[in-house]
Amino acid sequence: MEKELGQGYMKMNGEIWLSDPEEKHGFRANWKVENVIHTEQSDFQEVSIIETMGFGRALVLDGILQTTEKDAHIYNEMITHVPLATHPNPKQVCIIGGGDCGAAREAARYPVERIDMVEIDPKVVEVSLKYLPSVTGGKPDPRIHFLYEDGAAFVRNKKAAYDVIAVDSSDPIGPAAVLFEEAFYQDVSAALKEDGLMVCQSESPIFHEDVFIHVHRTLKKLFPIVRTYLATVPTYPGGIWSFTLASKKHDPLSEMAAQRVRDEETKYIDQELFQGCFQLPAYVKRMIR
Amino acid sequence: MEKELGQGYMKMNGEIWLSDPEEKHGFRANWKVENVIHTEQSDFQEVSIIETMGFGRALVLDGILQTTEKDAHIYNEMITHVPLATHPNPKQVCIIGGGDCGAAREAARYPVERIDMVEIDPKVVEVSLKYLPSVTGGKPDPRIHFLYEDGAAFVRNKKAAYDVIAVDSSDPIGPAAVLFEEAFYQDVSAALKEDGLMVCQSESPIFHEDVFIHVHRTLKKLFPIVRTYLATVPTYPGGIWSFTLASKKHDPLSEMAAQRVRDEETKYIDQELFQGCFQLPAYVKRMIR
Repeated sequence: MEKELGQGYMKMNGEIWLSDPEEKHGFRANWKVENVIHTEQSDFQEVSIIETMGFGRALVLDGILQTTEKDAHIYNEMITHVPLATHPNPKQVCIIGGGDCGAAREAARYPVERIDMVEIDPKVVEVSLKYLPSVTGGKPDPRIHFLYEDGAAFVRNKKAAYDVIAVDSSDPIGPAAVLFEEAFYQDVSAALKEDGLMVCQSESPIFHEDVFIHVHRTLKKLFPIVRTYLATVPTYPGGIWSFTLASKKHDPLSEMAAQRVRDEETKYIDQELFQGCFQLPAYVKRMIR
Repeated sequence: MEKELGQGYMKMNGEIWLSDPEEKHGFRANWKVENVIHTEQSDFQEVSIIETMGFGRALVLDGILQTTEKDAHIYNEMITHVPLATHPNPKQVCIIGGGDCGAAREAARYPVERIDMVEIDPKVVEVSLKYLPSVTGGKPDPRIHFLYEDGAAFVRNKKAAYDVIAVDSSDPIGPAAVLFEEAFYQDVSAALKEDGLMVCQSESPIFHEDVFIHVHRTLKKLFPIVRTYLATVPTYPGGIWSFTLASKKHDPLSEMAAQRVRDEETKYIDQELFQGCFQLPAYVKRMIR
Protein backbone atom coordinates (compact mmCIF):
# COMPACT_ATOMS: atom_id res chain seq x y z
CA MET A 1 0.00 0.00 0.00
CA GLU A 2 1.27 3.47 -0.79
CA LYS A 3 0.54 6.18 1.73
CA GLU A 4 -0.26 8.88 -0.80
CA LEU A 5 -3.09 6.82 -2.30
CA GLY A 6 -5.10 7.08 0.91
CA GLN A 7 -7.10 4.55 2.89
CA GLY A 8 -8.17 1.32 1.28
CA TYR A 9 -6.01 1.44 -1.83
CA MET A 10 -3.35 -1.09 -2.65
CA LYS A 11 -0.96 -1.74 -5.47
CA MET A 12 -0.94 -5.23 -6.99
CA ASN A 13 1.30 -6.09 -9.95
CA GLY A 14 1.57 -2.43 -10.86
CA GLU A 15 -2.21 -1.88 -10.77
CA ILE A 16 -4.11 0.17 -8.22
CA TRP A 17 -7.03 -1.54 -6.50
CA LEU A 18 -9.51 -0.23 -3.96
CA SER A 19 -10.21 -2.87 -1.33
CA ASP A 20 -13.48 -2.80 0.60
CA PRO A 21 -12.99 -4.96 3.68
CA GLU A 22 -15.57 -6.84 5.71
CA GLU A 23 -12.98 -8.08 8.18
CA LYS A 24 -15.38 -9.97 10.44
CA HIS A 25 -16.50 -12.08 7.50
CA GLY A 26 -13.07 -12.50 5.89
CA PHE A 27 -14.30 -10.84 2.70
CA ARG A 28 -12.85 -8.11 0.52
CA ALA A 29 -14.42 -6.61 -2.58
CA ASN A 30 -11.64 -5.24 -4.77
CA TRP A 31 -12.13 -2.67 -7.51
CA LYS A 32 -9.54 -1.92 -10.15
CA VAL A 33 -8.86 1.80 -10.17
CA GLU A 34 -8.01 3.33 -13.53
CA ASN A 35 -7.43 6.79 -12.12
CA VAL A 36 -7.78 8.73 -8.88
CA ILE A 37 -9.54 11.84 -10.18
CA HIS A 38 -9.73 13.76 -6.94
CA THR A 39 -8.86 13.19 -3.31
CA GLU A 40 -8.84 15.47 -0.30
CA GLN A 41 -9.30 15.39 3.43
CA SER A 42 -12.46 17.27 4.39
CA ASP A 43 -13.30 18.30 7.96
CA PHE A 44 -14.97 14.91 8.38
CA GLN A 45 -13.43 12.29 6.14
CA GLU A 46 -11.24 11.50 3.17
CA VAL A 47 -13.31 12.32 0.09
CA SER A 48 -12.24 10.84 -3.26
CA ILE A 49 -13.53 10.42 -6.77
CA ILE A 50 -12.00 7.52 -8.67
CA GLU A 51 -12.44 6.06 -12.13
CA THR A 52 -13.08 2.33 -11.77
CA MET A 53 -12.54 -0.10 -14.59
CA GLY A 54 -16.01 -1.67 -14.60
CA PHE A 55 -18.40 0.70 -12.81
CA GLY A 56 -17.50 4.14 -14.05
CA ARG A 57 -16.61 6.92 -11.66
CA ALA A 58 -17.12 6.33 -7.96
CA LEU A 59 -17.38 8.36 -4.77
CA VAL A 60 -15.16 6.95 -2.03
CA LEU A 61 -15.30 8.09 1.63
CA ASP A 62 -12.52 7.00 3.98
CA GLY A 63 -11.61 4.23 1.57
CA ILE A 64 -15.15 2.81 1.37
CA LEU A 65 -16.90 2.77 -2.00
CA GLN A 66 -20.20 4.69 -1.66
CA THR A 67 -21.63 5.32 -5.09
CA THR A 68 -20.70 4.35 -8.63
CA GLU A 69 -22.00 5.73 -11.90
CA LYS A 70 -23.07 2.25 -12.98
CA ASP A 71 -25.26 1.34 -10.02
CA ALA A 72 -25.92 4.49 -7.94
CA HIS A 73 -29.47 4.62 -9.25
CA ILE A 74 -30.39 1.37 -7.49
CA TYR A 75 -29.77 2.66 -4.00
CA ASN A 76 -30.96 6.20 -4.74
CA GLU A 77 -34.22 5.11 -6.34
CA MET A 78 -35.00 2.64 -3.57
CA ILE A 79 -34.44 5.04 -0.68
CA THR A 80 -36.73 7.69 -2.20
CA HIS A 81 -39.40 6.21 -4.47
CA VAL A 82 -40.58 3.69 -1.88
CA PRO A 83 -41.36 6.26 0.87
CA LEU A 84 -42.59 8.89 -1.58
CA ALA A 85 -45.00 6.46 -3.21
CA THR A 86 -46.11 5.16 0.18
CA HIS A 87 -47.13 8.64 1.33
CA PRO A 88 -50.22 9.72 -0.65
CA ASN A 89 -49.33 13.40 -0.65
CA PRO A 90 -45.71 14.15 0.31
CA LYS A 91 -44.96 17.87 0.28
CA GLN A 92 -42.19 18.47 2.82
CA VAL A 93 -39.28 16.07 2.45
CA CYS A 94 -36.01 15.82 4.36
CA ILE A 95 -32.99 13.78 3.34
CA ILE A 96 -30.33 13.21 6.00
CA GLY A 97 -26.97 12.58 4.36
CA GLY A 98 -27.19 11.66 0.71
CA GLY A 99 -24.29 13.90 -0.28
CA ASP A 100 -24.02 12.31 -3.72
CA CYS A 101 -27.30 14.17 -4.48
CA GLY A 102 -28.80 11.13 -6.20
CA ALA A 103 -31.55 10.66 -3.61
CA ALA A 104 -32.57 14.33 -3.82
CA ARG A 105 -32.68 14.04 -7.60
CA GLU A 106 -35.05 11.06 -7.37
CA ALA A 107 -37.22 12.77 -4.73
CA ALA A 108 -37.64 15.72 -7.11
CA ARG A 109 -39.50 13.43 -9.54
CA TYR A 110 -42.48 13.67 -7.14
CA PRO A 111 -44.71 16.74 -6.80
CA VAL A 112 -43.13 17.76 -3.51
CA GLU A 113 -42.84 21.38 -2.41
CA ARG A 114 -39.50 21.31 -0.67
CA ILE A 115 -36.59 18.92 -0.17
CA ASP A 116 -34.23 19.75 2.69
CA MET A 117 -30.97 17.95 2.07
CA VAL A 118 -29.05 17.92 5.34
CA GLU A 119 -25.50 16.77 4.66
CA ILE A 120 -22.78 17.25 7.23
CA ASP A 121 -19.94 17.41 4.70
CA PRO A 122 -20.18 20.08 1.96
CA LYS A 123 -17.15 18.55 0.23
CA VAL A 124 -19.16 15.45 -0.64
CA VAL A 125 -21.82 17.54 -2.37
CA GLU A 126 -19.19 19.70 -4.08
CA VAL A 127 -17.20 16.83 -5.60
CA SER A 128 -20.34 14.91 -6.52
CA LEU A 129 -21.81 17.87 -8.40
CA LYS A 130 -18.46 18.44 -10.12
CA TYR A 131 -17.46 14.89 -11.01
CA LEU A 132 -20.62 12.73 -10.97
CA PRO A 133 -23.22 14.53 -13.12
CA SER A 134 -24.80 11.23 -14.18
CA VAL A 135 -25.55 10.55 -10.51
CA THR A 136 -26.59 14.05 -9.44
CA GLY A 137 -28.51 14.77 -12.64
CA GLY A 138 -26.65 18.06 -13.12
CA LYS A 139 -27.99 21.34 -11.80
CA PRO A 140 -30.09 20.56 -8.72
CA ASP A 141 -33.85 21.09 -8.80
CA PRO A 142 -34.72 24.47 -7.21
CA ARG A 143 -36.90 22.74 -4.61
CA ILE A 144 -33.76 21.12 -3.13
CA HIS A 145 -32.30 23.15 -0.23
CA PHE A 146 -28.75 22.26 0.77
CA LEU A 147 -28.18 22.52 4.51
CA TYR A 148 -24.67 21.72 5.66
CA GLU A 149 -25.42 20.67 9.19
CA ASP A 150 -25.22 17.74 11.52
CA GLY A 151 -28.27 15.65 10.61
CA ALA A 152 -28.96 14.50 14.17
CA ALA A 153 -28.89 18.04 15.57
CA PHE A 154 -30.99 19.35 12.68
CA VAL A 155 -33.74 16.79 13.20
CA ARG A 156 -33.77 17.39 16.98
CA ASN A 157 -34.92 20.97 16.37
CA LYS A 158 -37.77 20.13 14.01
CA LYS A 159 -41.29 19.30 15.19
CA ALA A 160 -44.07 17.93 12.97
CA ALA A 161 -42.33 19.46 9.98
CA TYR A 162 -41.99 16.71 7.40
CA ASP A 163 -44.10 14.19 5.52
CA VAL A 164 -41.12 12.01 4.65
CA ILE A 165 -37.61 11.79 6.12
CA ALA A 166 -35.06 9.60 4.33
CA VAL A 167 -31.91 8.72 6.28
CA ASP A 168 -29.35 8.17 3.55
CA SER A 169 -26.35 7.53 5.76
CA SER A 170 -23.03 5.84 5.29
CA ASP A 171 -22.09 2.87 7.51
CA PRO A 172 -22.56 3.17 11.31
CA ILE A 173 -18.95 4.07 11.92
CA GLY A 174 -17.50 7.60 11.85
CA PRO A 175 -19.86 10.55 11.35
CA ALA A 176 -22.93 8.39 10.60
CA ALA A 177 -22.86 6.24 13.78
CA VAL A 178 -25.32 8.51 15.62
CA LEU A 179 -27.87 8.02 12.83
CA PHE A 180 -28.42 4.41 13.95
CA GLU A 181 -29.27 5.24 17.59
CA GLU A 182 -32.71 5.11 19.21
CA ALA A 183 -32.52 8.75 20.37
CA PHE A 184 -32.10 9.83 16.75
CA TYR A 185 -35.10 7.79 15.60
CA GLN A 186 -37.18 9.38 18.39
CA ASP A 187 -36.20 12.80 17.09
CA VAL A 188 -37.09 11.72 13.56
CA SER A 189 -40.50 10.60 14.77
CA ALA A 190 -41.07 13.99 16.43
CA ALA A 191 -39.92 15.79 13.30
CA LEU A 192 -42.53 13.97 11.21
CA LYS A 193 -46.11 15.13 10.84
CA GLU A 194 -48.83 12.97 12.34
CA ASP A 195 -49.11 10.87 9.19
CA GLY A 196 -45.41 11.08 8.34
CA LEU A 197 -43.02 8.28 7.59
CA MET A 198 -39.29 7.67 7.52
CA VAL A 199 -36.96 5.31 5.75
CA CYS A 200 -33.33 4.48 6.42
CA GLN A 201 -30.74 2.30 4.79
CA SER A 202 -30.27 -0.54 7.25
CA GLU A 203 -27.15 -2.27 5.92
CA SER A 204 -26.74 -5.86 4.73
CA PRO A 205 -28.61 -8.67 6.50
CA ILE A 206 -25.67 -10.93 5.66
CA PHE A 207 -22.66 -8.78 6.51
CA HIS A 208 -24.22 -6.55 9.19
CA GLU A 209 -26.92 -8.76 10.66
CA ASP A 210 -26.65 -7.08 14.07
CA VAL A 211 -27.21 -3.57 12.66
CA PHE A 212 -30.02 -4.79 10.45
CA ILE A 213 -31.86 -6.39 13.38
CA HIS A 214 -31.12 -3.46 15.71
CA VAL A 215 -32.66 -0.95 13.30
CA HIS A 216 -35.79 -3.04 12.86
CA ARG A 217 -36.32 -3.68 16.58
CA THR A 218 -35.69 -0.06 17.52
CA LEU A 219 -38.11 1.31 14.94
CA LYS A 220 -40.76 -1.24 15.99
CA LYS A 221 -40.74 0.39 19.42
CA LEU A 222 -41.46 3.81 17.94
CA PHE A 223 -43.71 3.32 14.90
CA PRO A 224 -46.86 1.24 14.37
CA ILE A 225 -45.90 0.22 10.81
CA VAL A 226 -42.37 -1.04 10.08
CA ARG A 227 -41.56 -2.67 6.74
CA THR A 228 -38.26 -4.02 5.49
CA TYR A 229 -37.45 -4.07 1.81
CA LEU A 230 -34.42 -5.20 -0.16
CA ALA A 231 -32.48 -4.29 -3.25
CA THR A 232 -29.43 -5.83 -4.84
CA VAL A 233 -26.64 -3.29 -5.17
CA PRO A 234 -23.79 -5.05 -6.99
CA THR A 235 -21.07 -2.79 -5.58
CA TYR A 236 -22.08 -3.35 -1.95
CA PRO A 237 -20.67 -6.43 -0.18
CA GLY A 238 -22.74 -9.51 -0.99
CA GLY A 239 -25.07 -7.39 -3.11
CA ILE A 240 -28.08 -7.70 -0.81
CA TRP A 241 -28.98 -4.41 0.87
CA SER A 242 -31.80 -3.52 3.21
CA PHE A 243 -33.98 -0.49 3.81
CA THR A 244 -36.38 -0.10 6.72
CA LEU A 245 -39.50 2.03 6.37
CA ALA A 246 -41.22 3.17 9.57
CA SER A 247 -44.56 4.91 9.33
CA LYS A 248 -47.17 6.49 11.59
CA LYS A 249 -50.12 5.80 9.30
CA HIS A 250 -49.46 4.94 5.65
CA ASP A 251 -48.52 1.38 4.73
CA PRO A 252 -46.45 0.60 1.63
CA LEU A 253 -48.36 -2.68 1.32
CA SER A 254 -51.64 -0.84 0.75
CA GLU A 255 -53.07 -1.35 -2.69
CA MET A 256 -52.61 2.21 -3.89
CA ALA A 257 -48.96 2.71 -2.96
CA ALA A 258 -47.40 0.83 -5.88
CA GLN A 259 -49.52 2.75 -8.36
CA ARG A 260 -48.01 6.01 -7.16
CA VAL A 261 -44.43 5.00 -8.12
CA ARG A 262 -43.27 7.49 -10.75
CA ASP A 263 -41.27 5.03 -12.85
CA GLU A 264 -41.17 6.84 -16.21
CA GLU A 265 -37.44 7.52 -15.97
CA THR A 266 -36.21 5.02 -13.39
CA LYS A 267 -33.72 2.26 -14.06
CA TYR A 268 -34.39 -0.03 -11.11
CA ILE A 269 -37.73 0.53 -9.45
CA ASP A 270 -41.08 0.32 -11.19
CA GLN A 271 -44.57 -0.43 -9.96
CA GLU A 272 -44.03 -4.21 -10.07
CA LEU A 273 -40.62 -4.08 -8.40
CA PHE A 274 -42.11 -1.91 -5.63
CA GLN A 275 -44.31 -4.87 -4.72
CA GLY A 276 -41.58 -7.48 -5.20
CA CYS A 277 -39.05 -5.72 -2.95
CA PHE A 278 -41.14 -6.42 0.14
CA GLN A 279 -41.19 -10.19 -0.56
CA LEU A 280 -38.28 -11.12 1.68
CA PRO A 281 -36.29 -14.34 1.64
CA ALA A 282 -37.30 -16.68 4.46
CA TYR A 283 -34.01 -16.20 6.35
CA VAL A 284 -34.45 -12.41 6.37
CA LYS A 285 -38.00 -12.74 7.67
CA ARG A 286 -36.75 -14.95 10.50
CA MET A 287 -34.14 -12.36 11.50
CA ILE A 288 -36.80 -9.73 12.15
CA ARG A 289 -39.64 -11.91 13.42
CA MET B 1 0.84 -16.78 -5.27
CA GLU B 2 2.20 -20.19 -4.28
CA LYS B 3 1.96 -22.95 -6.84
CA GLU B 4 0.99 -25.68 -4.40
CA LEU B 5 -2.12 -23.76 -3.31
CA GLY B 6 -3.65 -24.11 -6.75
CA GLN B 7 -5.52 -21.71 -9.01
CA GLY B 8 -6.99 -18.56 -7.56
CA TYR B 9 -5.25 -18.57 -4.19
CA MET B 10 -2.86 -15.90 -3.02
CA LYS B 11 -0.90 -15.13 0.07
CA MET B 12 -1.27 -11.64 1.57
CA ASN B 13 0.49 -10.69 4.80
CA GLY B 14 0.82 -14.32 5.79
CA GLU B 15 -2.88 -15.05 5.17
CA ILE B 16 -4.30 -17.22 2.38
CA TRP B 17 -7.06 -15.67 0.29
CA LEU B 18 -9.09 -17.09 -2.57
CA SER B 19 -9.57 -14.51 -5.29
CA ASP B 20 -12.57 -14.74 -7.61
CA PRO B 21 -11.80 -12.56 -10.60
CA GLU B 22 -14.21 -10.81 -12.96
CA GLU B 23 -11.40 -9.41 -15.08
CA LYS B 24 -13.59 -7.65 -17.65
CA HIS B 25 -15.21 -5.60 -14.89
CA GLY B 26 -12.06 -4.99 -12.85
CA PHE B 27 -13.57 -6.74 -9.84
CA ARG B 28 -12.23 -9.37 -7.48
CA ALA B 29 -14.06 -10.95 -4.56
CA ASN B 30 -11.50 -12.21 -2.05
CA TRP B 31 -12.29 -14.80 0.61
CA LYS B 32 -10.03 -15.43 3.57
CA VAL B 33 -9.16 -19.11 3.71
CA GLU B 34 -8.66 -20.60 7.16
CA ASN B 35 -7.74 -24.01 5.85
CA VAL B 36 -7.53 -25.95 2.59
CA ILE B 37 -9.25 -29.15 3.65
CA HIS B 38 -8.90 -31.08 0.43
CA THR B 39 -7.59 -30.44 -3.07
CA GLU B 40 -7.04 -32.70 -6.03
CA GLN B 41 -7.01 -32.64 -9.79
CA SER B 42 -9.89 -34.70 -11.17
CA ASP B 43 -10.20 -35.76 -14.80
CA PHE B 44 -12.00 -32.48 -15.46
CA GLN B 45 -10.91 -29.79 -13.03
CA GLU B 46 -9.19 -28.87 -9.80
CA VAL B 47 -11.62 -29.81 -7.02
CA SER B 48 -11.08 -28.29 -3.57
CA ILE B 49 -12.84 -27.95 -0.26
CA ILE B 50 -11.75 -24.98 1.83
CA GLU B 51 -12.74 -23.57 5.18
CA THR B 52 -13.53 -19.88 4.72
CA MET B 53 -13.49 -17.43 7.58
CA GLY B 54 -17.01 -16.08 7.13
CA PHE B 55 -19.03 -18.55 5.05
CA GLY B 56 -18.09 -21.96 6.41
CA ARG B 57 -16.74 -24.66 4.16
CA ALA B 58 -16.80 -24.08 0.43
CA LEU B 59 -16.51 -26.12 -2.76
CA VAL B 60 -14.03 -24.57 -5.20
CA LEU B 61 -13.63 -25.71 -8.83
CA ASP B 62 -10.61 -24.47 -10.79
CA GLY B 63 -10.19 -21.64 -8.28
CA ILE B 64 -13.81 -20.43 -8.56
CA LEU B 65 -15.99 -20.50 -5.45
CA GLN B 66 -19.09 -22.59 -6.23
CA THR B 67 -20.94 -23.30 -3.02
CA THR B 68 -20.53 -22.30 0.62
CA GLU B 69 -22.19 -23.77 3.68
CA LYS B 70 -23.59 -20.36 4.60
CA ASP B 71 -25.41 -19.57 1.37
CA ALA B 72 -25.59 -22.74 -0.77
CA HIS B 73 -29.26 -23.08 0.07
CA ILE B 74 -30.14 -19.90 -1.82
CA TYR B 75 -28.98 -21.13 -5.19
CA ASN B 76 -30.05 -24.73 -4.60
CA GLU B 77 -33.56 -23.85 -3.45
CA MET B 78 -34.10 -21.41 -6.30
CA ILE B 79 -33.03 -23.76 -9.10
CA THR B 80 -35.33 -26.54 -7.87
CA HIS B 81 -38.37 -25.23 -5.99
CA VAL B 82 -39.34 -22.79 -8.72
CA PRO B 83 -39.59 -25.37 -11.54
CA LEU B 84 -40.97 -28.09 -9.26
CA ALA B 85 -43.72 -25.81 -7.97
CA THR B 86 -44.46 -24.56 -11.49
CA HIS B 87 -45.10 -28.09 -12.76
CA PRO B 88 -48.36 -29.35 -11.20
CA ASN B 89 -47.27 -32.98 -11.06
CA PRO B 90 -43.52 -33.51 -11.55
CA LYS B 91 -42.55 -37.17 -11.39
CA GLN B 92 -39.46 -37.61 -13.54
CA VAL B 93 -36.75 -35.03 -12.80
CA CYS B 94 -33.28 -34.59 -14.26
CA ILE B 95 -30.54 -32.38 -12.85
CA ILE B 96 -27.60 -31.67 -15.15
CA GLY B 97 -24.53 -30.83 -13.08
CA GLY B 98 -25.28 -29.95 -9.49
CA GLY B 99 -22.42 -32.04 -8.12
CA ASP B 100 -22.70 -30.44 -4.68
CA CYS B 101 -25.94 -32.49 -4.35
CA GLY B 102 -27.83 -29.53 -2.86
CA ALA B 103 -30.22 -29.21 -5.79
CA ALA B 104 -31.05 -32.92 -5.71
CA ARG B 105 -31.66 -32.66 -1.98
CA GLU B 106 -34.16 -29.84 -2.52
CA ALA B 107 -35.85 -31.66 -5.42
CA ALA B 108 -36.41 -34.63 -3.12
CA ARG B 109 -38.71 -32.46 -0.97
CA TYR B 110 -41.33 -32.87 -3.74
CA PRO B 111 -43.32 -36.08 -4.35
CA VAL B 112 -41.26 -36.96 -7.41
CA GLU B 113 -40.62 -40.58 -8.44
CA ARG B 114 -37.08 -40.29 -9.73
CA ILE B 115 -34.28 -37.74 -9.84
CA ASP B 116 -31.52 -38.43 -12.36
CA MET B 117 -28.47 -36.43 -11.33
CA VAL B 118 -26.14 -36.28 -14.30
CA GLU B 119 -22.79 -34.96 -13.16
CA ILE B 120 -19.73 -35.27 -15.35
CA ASP B 121 -17.25 -35.29 -12.47
CA PRO B 122 -17.69 -37.96 -9.76
CA LYS B 123 -15.03 -36.26 -7.66
CA VAL B 124 -17.31 -33.27 -7.07
CA VAL B 125 -20.05 -35.53 -5.71
CA GLU B 126 -17.55 -37.53 -3.65
CA VAL B 127 -15.94 -34.57 -1.90
CA SER B 128 -19.29 -32.82 -1.39
CA LEU B 129 -20.81 -35.89 0.28
CA LYS B 130 -17.71 -36.26 2.41
CA TYR B 131 -17.03 -32.65 3.43
CA LEU B 132 -20.28 -30.69 2.96
CA PRO B 133 -23.02 -32.64 4.76
CA SER B 134 -24.93 -29.45 5.57
CA VAL B 135 -25.22 -28.79 1.83
CA THR B 136 -25.89 -32.35 0.64
CA GLY B 137 -28.18 -33.17 3.57
CA GLY B 138 -26.22 -36.34 4.34
CA LYS B 139 -27.19 -39.72 2.86
CA PRO B 140 -28.88 -39.04 -0.50
CA ASP B 141 -32.58 -39.78 -0.91
CA PRO B 142 -33.03 -43.21 -2.60
CA ARG B 143 -34.95 -41.57 -5.46
CA ILE B 144 -31.74 -39.80 -6.53
CA HIS B 145 -29.80 -41.70 -9.19
CA PHE B 146 -26.22 -40.60 -9.73
CA LEU B 147 -25.14 -40.84 -13.34
CA TYR B 148 -21.56 -39.82 -14.01
CA GLU B 149 -21.89 -38.82 -17.62
CA ASP B 150 -21.56 -35.85 -19.92
CA GLY B 151 -24.82 -33.94 -19.43
CA ALA B 152 -25.10 -32.83 -23.03
CA ALA B 153 -24.64 -36.36 -24.41
CA PHE B 154 -27.03 -37.80 -21.82
CA VAL B 155 -29.82 -35.41 -22.71
CA ARG B 156 -29.30 -36.00 -26.46
CA ASN B 157 -30.31 -39.63 -26.01
CA LYS B 158 -33.50 -38.98 -24.04
CA LYS B 159 -36.87 -38.34 -25.68
CA ALA B 160 -40.00 -37.15 -23.84
CA ALA B 161 -38.57 -38.59 -20.65
CA TYR B 162 -38.75 -35.82 -18.05
CA ASP B 163 -41.23 -33.43 -16.48
CA VAL B 164 -38.52 -31.09 -15.23
CA ILE B 165 -34.86 -30.64 -16.23
CA ALA B 166 -32.70 -28.32 -14.13
CA VAL B 167 -29.39 -27.27 -15.64
CA ASP B 168 -27.25 -26.57 -12.60
CA SER B 169 -24.03 -25.75 -14.39
CA SER B 170 -20.89 -23.87 -13.51
CA ASP B 171 -19.85 -20.84 -15.59
CA PRO B 172 -19.81 -21.17 -19.41
CA ILE B 173 -16.09 -21.87 -19.53
CA GLY B 174 -14.48 -25.29 -19.24
CA PRO B 175 -16.69 -28.39 -19.06
CA ALA B 176 -19.96 -26.38 -18.74
CA ALA B 177 -19.59 -24.23 -21.90
CA VAL B 178 -21.63 -26.62 -24.05
CA LEU B 179 -24.58 -26.30 -21.61
CA PHE B 180 -25.18 -22.74 -22.81
CA GLU B 181 -25.49 -23.59 -26.52
CA GLU B 182 -28.69 -23.67 -28.58
CA ALA B 183 -28.12 -27.27 -29.68
CA PHE B 184 -28.13 -28.34 -26.05
CA TYR B 185 -31.37 -26.51 -25.31
CA GLN B 186 -32.96 -28.20 -28.34
CA ASP B 187 -31.96 -31.55 -26.92
CA VAL B 188 -33.37 -30.54 -23.53
CA SER B 189 -36.66 -29.62 -25.19
CA ALA B 190 -36.81 -33.01 -26.90
CA ALA B 191 -35.97 -34.78 -23.61
CA LEU B 192 -38.93 -33.10 -21.91
CA LYS B 193 -42.46 -34.48 -22.00
CA GLU B 194 -45.09 -32.48 -23.88
CA ASP B 195 -45.89 -30.40 -20.80
CA GLY B 196 -42.33 -30.40 -19.46
CA LEU B 197 -40.22 -27.45 -18.41
CA MET B 198 -36.58 -26.64 -17.85
CA VAL B 199 -34.64 -24.15 -15.79
CA CYS B 200 -31.02 -23.10 -15.99
CA GLN B 201 -28.79 -20.80 -14.03
CA SER B 202 -28.17 -17.91 -16.42
CA GLU B 203 -25.37 -15.99 -14.69
CA SER B 204 -25.33 -12.39 -13.47
CA PRO B 205 -27.13 -9.69 -15.48
CA ILE B 206 -24.44 -7.27 -14.26
CA PHE B 207 -21.23 -9.25 -14.70
CA HIS B 208 -22.29 -11.55 -17.55
CA GLU B 209 -24.90 -9.51 -19.39
CA ASP B 210 -24.07 -11.15 -22.73
CA VAL B 211 -24.59 -14.70 -21.40
CA PHE B 212 -27.76 -13.64 -19.57
CA ILE B 213 -29.28 -12.16 -22.73
CA HIS B 214 -28.07 -15.02 -24.93
CA VAL B 215 -29.77 -17.62 -22.73
CA HIS B 216 -33.05 -15.72 -22.73
CA ARG B 217 -33.11 -15.11 -26.47
CA THR B 218 -32.15 -18.68 -27.31
CA LEU B 219 -34.81 -20.20 -25.06
CA LYS B 220 -37.44 -17.80 -26.48
CA LYS B 221 -36.87 -19.41 -29.87
CA LEU B 222 -37.56 -22.88 -28.48
CA PHE B 223 -40.23 -22.53 -25.76
CA PRO B 224 -43.56 -20.63 -25.66
CA ILE B 225 -43.13 -19.57 -22.01
CA VAL B 226 -39.81 -18.10 -20.83
CA ARG B 227 -39.56 -16.45 -17.40
CA THR B 228 -36.52 -14.91 -15.74
CA TYR B 229 -36.20 -14.83 -11.98
CA LEU B 230 -33.55 -13.54 -9.63
CA ALA B 231 -31.98 -14.34 -6.31
CA THR B 232 -29.25 -12.62 -4.34
CA VAL B 233 -26.39 -15.01 -3.63
CA PRO B 234 -23.91 -13.11 -1.44
CA THR B 235 -20.90 -15.19 -2.48
CA TYR B 236 -21.46 -14.68 -6.22
CA PRO B 237 -20.01 -11.52 -7.79
CA GLY B 238 -22.34 -8.57 -7.29
CA GLY B 239 -24.82 -10.81 -5.47
CA ILE B 240 -27.49 -10.67 -8.15
CA TRP B 241 -27.98 -13.99 -9.93
CA SER B 242 -30.42 -15.04 -12.62
CA PHE B 243 -32.29 -18.20 -13.49
CA THR B 244 -34.26 -18.72 -16.69
CA LEU B 245 -37.26 -21.03 -16.75
CA ALA B 246 -38.48 -22.25 -20.15
CA SER B 247 -41.72 -24.18 -20.35
CA LYS B 248 -43.90 -25.90 -22.93
CA LYS B 249 -47.16 -25.40 -21.06
CA HIS B 250 -47.06 -24.51 -17.35
CA ASP B 251 -46.46 -20.91 -16.34
CA PRO B 252 -44.86 -20.01 -12.97
CA LEU B 253 -46.99 -16.86 -12.95
CA SER B 254 -50.20 -18.88 -12.81
CA GLU B 255 -52.09 -18.49 -9.59
CA MET B 256 -51.59 -22.02 -8.31
CA ALA B 257 -47.83 -22.30 -8.76
CA ALA B 258 -46.79 -20.34 -5.66
CA GLN B 259 -49.09 -22.40 -3.47
CA ARG B 260 -47.24 -25.55 -4.46
CA VAL B 261 -43.90 -24.34 -3.04
CA ARG B 262 -42.95 -26.76 -0.26
CA ASP B 263 -41.39 -24.22 2.07
CA GLU B 264 -41.63 -26.01 5.42
CA GLU B 265 -37.86 -26.47 5.68
CA THR B 266 -36.46 -23.90 3.28
CA LYS B 267 -34.24 -20.98 4.26
CA TYR B 268 -34.65 -18.73 1.23
CA ILE B 269 -37.71 -19.49 -0.86
CA ASP B 270 -41.26 -19.48 0.44
CA GLN B 271 -44.60 -18.93 -1.25
CA GLU B 272 -44.29 -15.14 -1.09
CA LEU B 273 -40.70 -15.05 -2.29
CA PHE B 274 -41.69 -17.29 -5.21
CA GLN B 275 -43.91 -14.48 -6.43
CA GLY B 276 -41.43 -11.70 -5.62
CA CYS B 277 -38.52 -13.30 -7.48
CA PHE B 278 -40.23 -12.71 -10.83
CA GLN B 279 -40.59 -8.95 -10.16
CA LEU B 280 -37.48 -7.85 -12.00
CA PRO B 281 -35.70 -4.51 -11.72
CA ALA B 282 -36.44 -2.23 -14.65
CA TYR B 283 -32.91 -2.51 -16.07
CA VAL B 284 -33.12 -6.32 -16.14
CA LYS B 285 -36.49 -6.18 -17.90
CA ARG B 286 -35.00 -3.90 -20.55
CA MET B 287 -32.12 -6.32 -21.18
CA ILE B 288 -34.52 -9.12 -22.17
CA ARG B 289 -37.29 -7.11 -23.80
